[in-house]
Amino acid sequence: MTTSSAAGEPLTIVAGGGSVPAYVAAAAMKAGRPVLIIALKGEADPSVEAFPHEWVGWGDLGRLEALLKRPGARDMVLIGSVRSRPDFNSIKIDLATMRSLKDILSIIVGGDDDVLSGTIKFFERRGQRIVGAHEIATDLVAAPGPLGRRKPGRGEAADIAVAMRAARAIGAIDAGQAAVVVNGRVVALEAAEGTDQMLERVKGIRASGRVKWSGRAGVLAKCPRPQQDLRVDMPTIGPRTIEAVIEAGLAGIAVAAGKVMIVDREAVVRRADEAGLFLVGEADPAS
Amino acid sequence: MTTSSAAGEPLTIVAGGGSVPAYVAAAAMKAGRPVLIIALKGEADPSVEAFPHEWVGWGDLGRLEALLKRPGARDMVLIGSVRSRPDFNSIKIDLATMRSLKDILSIIVGGDDDVLSGTIKFFERRGQRIVGAHEIATDLVAAPGPLGRRKPGRGEAADIAVAMRAARAIGAIDAGQAAVVVNGRVVALEAAEGTDQMLERVKGIRASGRVKWSGRAGVLAKCPRPQQDLRVDMPTIGPRTIEAVIEAGLAGIAVAAGKVMIVDREAVVRRADEAGLFLVGEADPAS
Repeated sequence: MTTSSAAGEPLTIVAGGGSVPAYVAAAAMKAGRPVLIIALKGEADPSVEAFPHEWVGWGDLGRLEALLKRPGARDMVLIGSVRSRPDFNSIKIDLATMRSLKDILSIIVGGDDDVLSGTIKFFERRGQRIVGAHEIATDLVAAPGPLGRRKPGRGEAADIAVAMRAARAIGAIDAGQAAVVVNGRVVALEAAEGTDQMLERVKGIRASGRVKWSGRAGVLAKCPRPQQDLRVDMPTIGPRTIEAVIEAGLAGIAVAAGKVMIVDREAVVRRADEAGLFLVGEADPAS
Repeated sequence: MTTSSAAGEPLTIVAGGGSVPAYVAAAAMKAGRPVLIIALKGEADPSVEAFPHEWVGWGDLGRLEALLKRPGARDMVLIGSVRSRPDFNSIKIDLATMRSLKDILSIIVGGDDDVLSGTIKFFERRGQRIVGAHEIATDLVAAPGPLGRRKPGRGEAADIAVAMRAARAIGAIDAGQAAVVVNGRVVALEAAEGTDQMLERVKGIRASGRVKWSGRAGVLAKCPRPQQDLRVDMPTIGPRTIEAVIEAGLAGIAVAAGKVMIVDREAVVRRADEAGLFLVGEADPAS
């Protein structure tokens, strides 16, 4: 586990669902940082209870603001999935809530993107500095080069180049993060359906004979849109992505190095190695 | 029906399936051009029999070459759908075939794109000039502006701009021709699945609540890839597209003016008017 150095400085982790919040907490503690996990009720995984934590609901805003006032608490990570929208009815109108009401209303009333940027603003106004989970646990993202045993062959490298270019092009129009290219042909582009459903489509396109290839071929490429705030909103792959790529008959996965989160990396790399998939970080030509 | 002027000059129409070959023939005759339809056996519609025609199979190459030698026959339109690949076994090895064997083999052995470019080369080497169906029947494509009664509103015009930009972006990476945008959001991008399946997906995305909109909203945009040879390979919309757009809950369709074929235009416009869809030609900003 690779960690960043800010030994001694407290870190607050606001935890949604999944295994990543605990992973980030472990990395921070290994680097000598005192950690407090603020675990969102109904969202966070029980694994967070292995670390100093407080369960907080949307209604416990007064308690949340008090927790942020502990000495030296400045850096904050917002990480993990959140299924529910903030529930206005559950918010207790105490003194802290009254003071924050305008901020909270703008979060609740706004669209999806606004919830995220509203939440960031809410914490920044209370003295927090939002840092990315990958700044604390740097191996959450891929370095340039292969992550597992298998390296892409020459034809596969050509597919990777086309697919990364396609993924960047659809990111530039704020449409999606992922593209599938097989033997030079763009087979699928992601928009609102998401990566899993796009891979399901690729499976169908092959099964129907609309595009033909033999054995495993082609690549899923994934990279962020230029507009994404990578501190709080990263493209993600995980064990389910690997299974979907295997099902779709592809030969591997390429991700923008440093900019795509690999959830459950150990399991992801092991499964890719078992199945003979390549898994590679691609340096961004623009950066 | 609008027609181009080359009165008196013979026109050869190599006809695949659908209603467009007969439509082109009628436009040419109205413009005073003698027409010969070379109707592909197993592909062309019986409607071509209303015009001077010859049924020709893949095997009748000798006859085909003789037909091209009639006096003044120089302009040729290749139009209509072709479901089958040329069948090598059906080709009679007569004298003409022997001479053409190298060309034919390169058409049969090549990939899909090569069939088209190989076919063009085959005819060009025999003195033909390939012209687009829309150069003969100019109303096969949209002029800039609304085709039917309904005009896009202001929000719809904004969706059209985003969708045309998205469709051009995916064309530039040689991926697809169509995009769907609803209330500013790119909901779907076309690649190998084709426009009909993409629209089916949009219907599912709405039904699942992944993207929400009320009433009819959003647009299907369609434009050619920069690489397409518009003489023989145009993006197309037709009655089925209109039905799929209605099913998907969209408010209308925008096509690149002059560059997308509208099959069965009268029925398309009538149905769009009935359903209250807008249908609009968008001038290419690049041209």
